[in-house]
Amino acid sequence: MFILDPRLENDSLLINEQVNFQIRLMNVTEFFWIILIPKKTNLTELSDLNVNERNQLLNFAIDLGDHIKFTENLDKINIGMLGNVVSQLHLHVVIRSQNDPAWPGPVWGWKTINKLDKETLEYRSKVIQSFSIN
Amino acid sequence: MFILDPRLENDSLLINEQVNFQIRLMNVTEFFWIILIPKKTNLTELSDLNVNERNQLLNFAIDLGDHIKFTENLDKINIGMLGNVVSQLHLHVVIRSQNDPAWPGPVWGWKTINKLDKETLEYRSKVIQSFSIN
Repeated sequence: MFILDPRLENDSLLINEQVNFQIRLMNVTEFFWIILIPKKTNLTELSDLNVNERNQLLNFAIDLGDHIKFTENLDKINIGMLGNVVSQLHLHVVIRSQNDPAWPGPVWGWKTINKLDKETLEYRSKVIQSFSIN
Repeated sequence: MFILDPRLENDSLLINEQVNFQIRLMNVTEFFWIILIPKKTNLTELSDLNVNERNQLLNFAIDLGDHIKFTENLDKINIGMLGNVVSQLHLHVVIRSQNDPAWPGPVWGWKTINKLDKETLEYRSKVIQSFSIN
């Protein structure tokens, strides 16, 4: 049974439940920051997924990022798998703007963030949902 | 014709030339840090690769990271595609130790680094070559 790490749960909001992974939005205003969390137990590395699962997850991340970059007129897609702090496997997809406060540095380790207001949350959810999600 | 960005060339050393990508080692002692650079022109995002090319590159990165993590008894694989500074598509595979100076933060943005000495370069090259590279 899939159990979400409480730190991931606390830092992000569920947008869509797919068969194999959750699509969550990080609770930050500054960045359009998505995390994808595969729903198998005991995953810490991408190598814990079989090749089909990896390909499905990564291509979804790439194509979702591409969709958001173009519809929102943003500048760069950052994709990362770190897991140094929270070991449960999660994939970051951050669609960056040259005007965001961390640019051109990474968002990981960025300290000063504001939580999502209701409007921004609803807007970003719609953008994600518009990416032909079943 | 494939042209390597001079900043990537300056920061890293060629270890192996594959058909579709270069395997390079970042010129830093502190981290076992590999970059994979696809050899097509005008790539900035993973979405610029077709699905087969993406899958080949990413699975290679995942399996190479896994190989090094286990043979070197390291702690965590960090994989990242950023490109905010150098736009030419390159994939980072960093095999982290809980004892490295940036842990648990990301290596991207880490400032104080020492260049590879000859012994460490040769050692890491051998570890990479031991991953059944053709």
